[in-house]
Amino acid sequence: MNESLELAREALKAANEAKFLANNTWMLVATVLVFIMHLGFAALEAGFVQRKNVVNILFKNVMIVSVGLLSYYFIGFNLMYPGIEGGFLAFSGFGLTNPPDAAGLIEYADGSYTYYTDFIFQGMFAATCCTIVSGAVAERIKLLPFLIFCLLFVTIAYPITGYWKWGAGWLDAKGFYDFAGSTLVHSVGGWGALAGAILLGPRSGKYTEDGIRPIPGHSMPLATVGVFLLWFGWFGFNGGSVLSADPDLVSLVFVTTAVAAAAGCLGSFVVSKLIFETYDLSMALNGILGGLVGITASADGVSPLSAMLIGCIAGCIIPLSVSFFDRLKIDDPVGATSVHLVCGIWGTIAVALFGNYGEDTGGLGIQLLGIVAIGAFTFTFAFIIFFLIKILVGIRVEEIEERKGLDLGEHQALAYT
Amino acid sequence: MNESLELAREALKAANEAKFLANNTWMLVATVLVFIMHLGFAALEAGFVQRKNVVNILFKNVMIVSVGLLSYYFIGFNLMYPGIEGGFLAFSGFGLTNPPDAAGLIEYADGSYTYYTDFIFQGMFAATCCTIVSGAVAERIKLLPFLIFCLLFVTIAYPITGYWKWGAGWLDAKGFYDFAGSTLVHSVGGWGALAGAILLGPRSGKYTEDGIRPIPGHSMPLATVGVFLLWFGWFGFNGGSVLSADPDLVSLVFVTTAVAAAAGCLGSFVVSKLIFETYDLSMALNGILGGLVGITASADGVSPLSAMLIGCIAGCIIPLSVSFFDRLKIDDPVGATSVHLVCGIWGTIAVALFGNYGEDTGGLGIQLLGIVAIGAFTFTFAFIIFFLIKILVGIRVEEIEERKGLDLGEHQALAYT
Amino acid sequence: MNESLELAREALKAANEAKFLANNTWMLVATVLVFIMHLGFAALEAGFVQRKNVVNILFKNVMIVSVGLLSYYFIGFNLMYPGIEGGFLAFSGFGLTNPPDAAGLIEYADGSYTYYTDFIFQGMFAATCCTIVSGAVAERIKLLPFLIFCLLFVTIAYPITGYWKWGAGWLDAKGFYDFAGSTLVHSVGGWGALAGAILLGPRSGKYTEDGIRPIPGHSMPLATVGVFLLWFGWFGFNGGSVLSADPDLVSLVFVTTAVAAAAGCLGSFVVSKLIFETYDLSMALNGILGGLVGITASADGVSPLSAMLIGCIAGCIIPLSVSFFDRLKIDDPVGATSVHLVCGIWGTIAVALFGNYGEDTGGLGIQLLGIVAIGAFTFTFAFIIFFLIKILVGIRVEEIEERKGLDLGEHQALAYT
Repeated sequence: MNESLELAREALKAANEAKFLANNTWMLVATVLVFIMHLGFAALEAGFVQRKNVVNILFKNVMIVSVGLLSYYFIGFNLMYPGIEGGFLAFSGFGLTNPPDAAGLIEYADGSYTYYTDFIFQGMFAATCCTIVSGAVAERIKLLPFLIFCLLFVTIAYPITGYWKWGAGWLDAKGFYDFAGSTLVHSVGGWGALAGAILLGPRSGKYTEDGIRPIPGHSMPLATVGVFLLWFGWFGFNGGSVLSADPDLVSLVFVTTAVAAAAGCLGSFVVSKLIFETYDLSMALNGILGGLVGITASADGVSPLSAMLIGCIAGCIIPLSVSFFDRLKIDDPVGATSVHLVCGIWGTIAVALFGNYGEDTGGLGIQLLGIVAIGAFTFTFAFIIFFLIKILVGIRVEEIEERKGLDLGEHQALAYT
Repeated sequence: MNESLELAREALKAANEAKFLANNTWMLVATVLVFIMHLGFAALEAGFVQRKNVVNILFKNVMIVSVGLLSYYFIGFNLMYPGIEGGFLAFSGFGLTNPPDAAGLIEYADGSYTYYTDFIFQGMFAATCCTIVSGAVAERIKLLPFLIFCLLFVTIAYPITGYWKWGAGWLDAKGFYDFAGSTLVHSVGGWGALAGAILLGPRSGKYTEDGIRPIPGHSMPLATVGVFLLWFGWFGFNGGSVLSADPDLVSLVFVTTAVAAAAGCLGSFVVSKLIFETYDLSMALNGILGGLVGITASADGVSPLSAMLIGCIAGCIIPLSVSFFDRLKIDDPVGATSVHLVCGIWGTIAVALFGNYGEDTGGLGIQLLGIVAIGAFTFTFAFIIFFLIKILVGIRVEEIEERKGLDLGEHQALAYT
Repeated sequence: MNESLELAREALKAANEAKFLANNTWMLVATVLVFIMHLGFAALEAGFVQRKNVVNILFKNVMIVSVGLLSYYFIGFNLMYPGIEGGFLAFSGFGLTNPPDAAGLIEYADGSYTYYTDFIFQGMFAATCCTIVSGAVAERIKLLPFLIFCLLFVTIAYPITGYWKWGAGWLDAKGFYDFAGSTLVHSVGGWGALAGAILLGPRSGKYTEDGIRPIPGHSMPLATVGVFLLWFGWFGFNGGSVLSADPDLVSLVFVTTAVAAAAGCLGSFVVSKLIFETYDLSMALNGILGGLVGITASADGVSPLSAMLIGCIAGCIIPLSVSFFDRLKIDDPVGATSVHLVCGIWGTIAVALFGNYGEDTGGLGIQLLGIVAIGAFTFTFAFIIFFLIKILVGIRVEEIEERKGLDLGEHQALAYT
């Protein structure tokens, strides 16, 4: 009897270790998929700006990833996930806490992944909020002021509102639901983008007396590469947000994510054909992204058919929203505000309309409360920072620099020779 | 005794859950790898067409993925995998069947992955058959007619022949073998490509009285990016076709896939150097793809040395096949017919020559029967659809539109500014 | 009692199989990540060379991967990992040994992955050493001589020094430590690059009487795509070098790899701003790579803070090293010598300064011994091969071919039309 009991114990231990291996491996694969989204954003934004501003946008994206990872290591992670204790603004100290055991690592979240896995997965997300901003303020913002904004935005604003929900803060307690961040990541980036675009003003020559002058991106292949890489990475963004390799949930998330993106493409295709009377590649691309942002809040809790509807509506929103911001003369070279802010809000509302989360979660009122609270905080934060930078050091490049391009102005370099 | 028995049962349950986790995770990773092949195709085809048709080819590829996923959801999946019952043309109804249990998901295929995983992995494959066509008909086909063709091709033709083998249909019963789709995916796409290329006729100026005028692609870096991404994704295409994470088979498949591609590159390198007397990058790239298509039917059942031989022969075929189609004045801007049709046929034959599948599987006669049956069905289907579209609405753009480019003609846009 | 014992045995067997599944799956995922680094190198190098030499550099990279994989299959793998027996130069025969059991595959390395997984993961690494060389000798080396060099370098030189450490050779016995190859892969490539760059001499017009003339790369987006893909793949390069999915180690490696790259970017950003007084994108990109090369030797054995410091110092080294080689008139179009050789040496030294490997491993003296021994062997080998090729068939293209570009000279083709 002893022998069987010991063997059974050993077997159970080995089985749990195997689960731990599989879960942790999936989370790390999801991490690399989220990582490559930064290349997706860089390529998308570079493709959508003019030839003369390509080095600048690439440089910003490279810096954002690096600054974002390090600042999240030192401050953001502990501000967003303070653990039980809390502390001032829920901040639990600088830098990663040395986990207690000898190997410097602990099992975490009931055995599904390690502390370091938790950090690196979350850390890959963090910089995304700034990458979203960089597209909207492209082609006219000064480099250093933008990097200062990013540092503050990713270090302070993003983790605070993230804590409200994912760190088990007050919005979480109220039943607000946002699976992988339609609001917590995308709208947050979108509000920052909106604040920046408003304070900067439009690119010169965009809104003239003769109407809106389209300023087409310099490379559609680059933009397309970017969107496919973002879609690719989104399987990690949403799939990893299950926080385990749970087959039911992760596979559902894959399906909802994929069909929402596809439906977003078709929605945007049809509406932009009706409005602009052309087959517009950039609208189809942004339709995909809109669908992805839209499904992000509920990818783990809607049926595939609901996901299609959510994605399709998000796609239909895109051309309308782009026109809307253009009519307001808010100039956003890559459509980041439409994709991330507007579709992020839509996705968060969709949780209440389509989500199967039980009674206590994701009611319409609570979802709206979350949208408004996070929006108000983030927009105000971003606006104040941009405004302070504007009056202290200026945020917009000189007219002549804008005309000859930021690549020459800020980098003394050209993207192509 | 009770205690040990219970613990042993618990351990066994946990161990099986762990296997399920690992298998399902691998299938989902394979899914994202197959997904990125769509970017591979888009980049390859965009690189190989002229500058003036780049937006058009990108737009088509973006639409194909979206349309393919949704149509496969509604019709194709149930047509290809009808389950036990069958029904008219083996079609088991519209849309994904709601799996029976509470979570909306069931364990599937003896515990190795979920129903949703099954759908999404297969769904990523489906659009591939149309992506292959898009390359061959590039630079002269009208957009909407092409999309209508794709819808019908991916929704009806691909699942029907897929069912013959993978859905346990009559070819499967006869012992036809096609591991991951040399015929079922690649040749199917290739037959569609051939039908389209014949009915469209060559690009104007390609075959002149002075001989064949090469029309070089507009961006070799883009084409190279495409081929590397296709190779990358092929590890998921072939590796996922094991339908579990079985270490022996998946690792064998990785080795055969990799060495066949490498040998395809060398084969094409040597033969194209002999024929064209130059080091031709596009031939080396297509040699890699030829090797990959060639090994796809037998990647799980040949030795690495056989895989090299299969890949090398496929690579040698590429320049010969490209010249052959050129002599027939069948104009294929990206070489899709040579890569996917010809090497797909070769790979399916190679099953009989090199495969270790036991007596009942993959004999030469049966392999040829499968090639011919699927080819006859698919080519006829594609030819009729293209022909009907041609006489009803026309499939070829105006001469003047072809000259100024489809980007301006169909999209009022340029790929680069 | 019998029943429980049997069930417990069954459970233990299943649990061990599950572990095997998870470990092997992670190793194969790491393999595809390493594979895509070849696209990263191709894109980076293509972006950093002039427009007229793009087809040539792409062609070389495509060939290197293919030749590298096959030669490693036939010779390199058995030379690097000879097993217990040894033999002449530790070479254990040509081609993969047929593993003994029926399926043609064996469990390997205490159940964590198969023999074929072992080969394909190592095989993906192998060609890297040549890819590094190709950047440094770009824009002036003859194609065939370069490919001959690569064949010898990857087939003979790389596996011999690899054997010294990873094949349990004499450096391993002495306690030399190099986790994933700061020296064994990157410095080895760097020494080859240095030998080639010295023997070839600088590109004409690079070092003039009026000083150093910068020759900017032709496409910054392409170079940026390359660096992001390299960073992406590095998670597989370092993460896979754990040789299992061990959650503690792999997640630690992910964190150290990520923060070292980020810190390398910032280090290079600051130093290059101080030296060159501009925000230099190519320096930021090479700073990322420098950080990655630097952490590669110790990614599994330093704290994240140490990793940042290692990466930051590597990043600071980059602009200094680039200037240093320029002052020596050693022309390296992509900075491969600085990134891979200099930062590789730094990373190997850092093992002794920051690593937590216990007393017997990685002392400073032994680390230096390894650097010097491997450097001396590799540089001598590469120099002799390049020198023999130089006097026998010549390695440098004609002045006129260099001026009009290798794409026309060697390939009769253009990268862009």
